[in-house]
Amino acid sequence: MVEFAVRDGIVDIEETSVFAPKFSADGLLPAVAVDARTGAVLMLAYMNAEALARTIETGEAHYWSRSRAALWRKGATSGAVQTVRAIRVDCDQDALVLEVEQAGAACHTNRRTCFYRTLAPDGLLQKDA
Amino acid sequence: MVEFAVRDGIVDIEETSVFAPKFSADGLLPAVAVDARTGAVLMLAYMNAEALARTIETGEAHYWSRSRAALWRKGATSGAVQTVRAIRVDCDQDALVLEVEQAGAACHTNRRTCFYRTLAPDGLLQKDA
Repeated sequence: MVEFAVRDGIVDIEETSVFAPKFSADGLLPAVAVDARTGAVLMLAYMNAEALARTIETGEAHYWSRSRAALWRKGATSGAVQTVRAIRVDCDQDALVLEVEQAGAACHTNRRTCFYRTLAPDGLLQKDA
Repeated sequence: MVEFAVRDGIVDIEETSVFAPKFSADGLLPAVAVDARTGAVLMLAYMNAEALARTIETGEAHYWSRSRAALWRKGATSGAVQTVRAIRVDCDQDALVLEVEQAGAACHTNRRTCFYRTLAPDGLLQKDA
């Protein structure tokens, strides 16, 4: 399995070329999947070290399901596989953006994106047309 | 302060128009700020209920700084204010996307986005040109 660098010895985490992702106390970091063509945000999920390693090794997005407490290959049952075209990391290396080719719908509600509702001025959620 | 609905009585969190955000055990939920014009992901940060309420009330993005353990009005010291044009919520209502007009640089390194490095095939991070 891919191993990740230890952060302790890295002086400047914002400028280094060493990939040393920071998992929080629960061993997870958030990953935002965006459509590689349009840039649209599709979903946000969490990865542990194993999910990130498998994503890198296979080129298909893997996450950690907090509700099921299990490694989860996106699309394993639904077919909504995410083929990863790029993995971006932020300044602090504690969040990822995955640029993916999304097969079918990213959302378990069968919508293209999970972010299909906007907070309206009246305080209610309005669904996209 | 804006109050949020209790989730317990909501049967179908994916389809309801009731905004009932789910904060995790530490009282936070992740918010992804994207450029309202281009859709580009700018940063990922966390909100507690107060940060979210202030964001809604003021129209300027507020977050909870985990490192400083303090409410943080984005741009308060740097001037890199985020004017919020829309707040989107995901199917489970445990993650947000903010569409913002970003003054200056979203990243504390003075870059437009925090996600300026991509994982290269050799395992190293490569900065955007």
